[in-house]
Amino acid sequence: MRLSRFFLPTLKETPAEAKIVSHRLMLRAGMIRQESAGIYSWLPLGLRVLKNIETIIRDEQDAAGAQEILMPTIQSADLWRESGRYDDYGKEMLRIEDRHGRDLLYGPTNEEMVTSILRDCIKSYKQLPVNLYHIQWKFRDEVRPRFGIMRCREFLMKDAYSFDLDLEGAKRSYDNMFAAYLRTFARMGLKAVPVRADPGAIGGDMSHEFHILAETGESAIFYDAAYDEMTLDMDNPDVAALQSIYAAEEELHDPEKCPVADDRLKQARGIEVGHIFFFGTKYSAAMGLVVDGPGGERITPEMGSYGIGVSRLPAAIIEASHDENGIIWPDSVAPFAVGLVNLKVSDEACVSQCDDIYDRLRDAGIEALYDDRDERPGAKFADMDLIGLPWQLVVGPRGVAAGTVELKRRAGGEKEELSLDSALEKLTG
Amino acid sequence: MRLSRFFLPTLKETPAEAKIVSHRLMLRAGMIRQESAGIYSWLPLGLRVLKNIETIIRDEQDAAGAQEILMPTIQSADLWRESGRYDDYGKEMLRIEDRHGRDLLYGPTNEEMVTSILRDCIKSYKQLPVNLYHIQWKFRDEVRPRFGIMRCREFLMKDAYSFDLDLEGAKRSYDNMFAAYLRTFARMGLKAVPVRADPGAIGGDMSHEFHILAETGESAIFYDAAYDEMTLDMDNPDVAALQSIYAAEEELHDPEKCPVADDRLKQARGIEVGHIFFFGTKYSAAMGLVVDGPGGERITPEMGSYGIGVSRLPAAIIEASHDENGIIWPDSVAPFAVGLVNLKVSDEACVSQCDDIYDRLRDAGIEALYDDRDERPGAKFADMDLIGLPWQLVVGPRGVAAGTVELKRRAGGEKEELSLDSALEKLTG
Repeated sequence: MRLSRFFLPTLKETPAEAKIVSHRLMLRAGMIRQESAGIYSWLPLGLRVLKNIETIIRDEQDAAGAQEILMPTIQSADLWRESGRYDDYGKEMLRIEDRHGRDLLYGPTNEEMVTSILRDCIKSYKQLPVNLYHIQWKFRDEVRPRFGIMRCREFLMKDAYSFDLDLEGAKRSYDNMFAAYLRTFARMGLKAVPVRADPGAIGGDMSHEFHILAETGESAIFYDAAYDEMTLDMDNPDVAALQSIYAAEEELHDPEKCPVADDRLKQARGIEVGHIFFFGTKYSAAMGLVVDGPGGERITPEMGSYGIGVSRLPAAIIEASHDENGIIWPDSVAPFAVGLVNLKVSDEACVSQCDDIYDRLRDAGIEALYDDRDERPGAKFADMDLIGLPWQLVVGPRGVAAGTVELKRRAGGEKEELSLDSALEKLTG
Repeated sequence: MRLSRFFLPTLKETPAEAKIVSHRLMLRAGMIRQESAGIYSWLPLGLRVLKNIETIIRDEQDAAGAQEILMPTIQSADLWRESGRYDDYGKEMLRIEDRHGRDLLYGPTNEEMVTSILRDCIKSYKQLPVNLYHIQWKFRDEVRPRFGIMRCREFLMKDAYSFDLDLEGAKRSYDNMFAAYLRTFARMGLKAVPVRADPGAIGGDMSHEFHILAETGESAIFYDAAYDEMTLDMDNPDVAALQSIYAAEEELHDPEKCPVADDRLKQARGIEVGHIFFFGTKYSAAMGLVVDGPGGERITPEMGSYGIGVSRLPAAIIEASHDENGIIWPDSVAPFAVGLVNLKVSDEACVSQCDDIYDRLRDAGIEALYDDRDERPGAKFADMDLIGLPWQLVVGPRGVAAGTVELKRRAGGEKEELSLDSALEKLTG
């Protein structure tokens, strides 16, 4: 993509309303734009990151055996009356009346709807277990939306729902998603701490939140130092071992009963990026979901639900990965792999070399953002650092004459003068 | 995907409420499920088709130089008051009040929002032309939703918005999208007739609808027989020539003034799958979008908008491509390329051969739905015909003994007995 044609409305000044670094950087980098309180548009650069995050989540959900569906954003109030949550949910639920006076709502979550789908569609124990997920926009009418997309009203969530015949199967499903979550976040370059949590409005018996440690996190958590020693290598997470390590939200942390020695007990702030629940038959029983067992007996499935805050993740990643100059995207979610910088667009040799590099990167399947604008080098470097692409490939008249380019790694800032072929080899692996 | 584990709630009986064939077949094939009047969930089989359609649309929008963004579903009423459409839009607009009593709405379209984005983000003629699109759920509170996803309330739309400096540029943008639309529909196996249309609530000076001819279409259209002779080869459509061929909606068709000879004038019913508009400065002027021109003069950009009914397309394709046994998916949008049918799951040789074929197809990058269920052959064939995968690869004990498999093309019904290697070669091209 040529930057001269890319819709990238970066800001020179820091927006006054943005209180945390991810919000500031997302606005400055032209990733998002507020439309109403807590409601955002995703501009091209931001949407590319959001989609990369979606792809990782989808991959890991599919690999874990969950199947993707897509439920609508608007739900019938009657469905929520069946579970009793229509009255319980309070003002966070966006309630709507249609032209015929029927009560609707913008779904904040989908336990009721997915339970009703299963109630209609399955009859026999042979059809279980099943885990259905979707990635869909939700709405929660937060009283004070803030921190950009971190605490907004319209947000994108991945929510999965498991249905099992018995407790043992349900625990297996829960642990399966627990492991998938650790793999998912690790692929985004994030160390996520699984924290015992309060099930809240979803209800149930067991619940973990997944937190990214960051000073700007909204939750206080207490955890065993073992998590600081945990690696990001999540190819085969030992779920039982991880679940046995202490970590709890402030509300659930009782210093009297905490099993961790004082010198091992850490306190930090966390950004919640995932939340999983086991709640047994709470919804299946209330809504009459039953299947025939092998002996003709009636079985009420055991359920769990599993959420990831998809649209919050770009902000969480930025909170965990930035410096004073801007964002530092992990390779796996970067909007482009490479920023190709032409230092002098009036120089034909520079243009011709850049065009050639751009074509060769594209042919190698590498997406580059090609800064072909007529701007000063300083402005180009500042923009590249701000938007945080993992690599910067810099082409200037001196290098062209000497047969070299400069390759800079955004993360550490290391720069190398290389022959063009060596640089391309490094980028294409 | 193994069918024994795939969430595919097919129906044996034809649902009484479904009046048109696409609605009947989508329900019977377990693709969709109604959640409320005009509001549907997409089950795994249906979602796979929807995503393939999205991918084709996105490809062609990107190739045409449009850039993807994502605007939210919920919009502020104030934005629509700026253009004057808040009061004009009537009861089809789903109006919402949030917890603070602020007026919101579920977006039926996005002219206002995208204009306000440009108003904030661009300053100079150098930043134009630009064309931004998104693929997002919309809501129109139809008084009588019907025909399944064909005329529903919550629907997925691709809408693009072009901004140009002058009329000539705007016409170029319009024609560019016109050509992209023909390519898009042709890739889905659809012949789309571009029909001069009434701009309706969007307003403007020029408008074309794209119609798929089908008996169940809701619109009556009149057109020159040249469209019947038009091929699906849309690599380089001649836009000017196509726009000069007569085709008009019933309301715009005046028999007195129609330039087509009687024996060349055709009447048919059409399903609208796309609608494009040129409306000049209607929104940019009303909302104060201006840029600085090269001489410092102020320029109000000329706009167009370009919609595709994404979630309606699976139904339109089915209306155009089915037989008495079920759906016939074009290869480009099929949920799986191949249905692999094991006729006898109690036979070890059959199972082993099927497992082997399944692995080899996967290794070749071909997605198969593997019917490994313990069902009678008749039920398996009926399900395969119903869900309409382009190829059926049938493995039975007799064939295994003779070293052959049966390959059936769903579209024409032709069956061949082939060696396994020949069959795989045919499938993998």
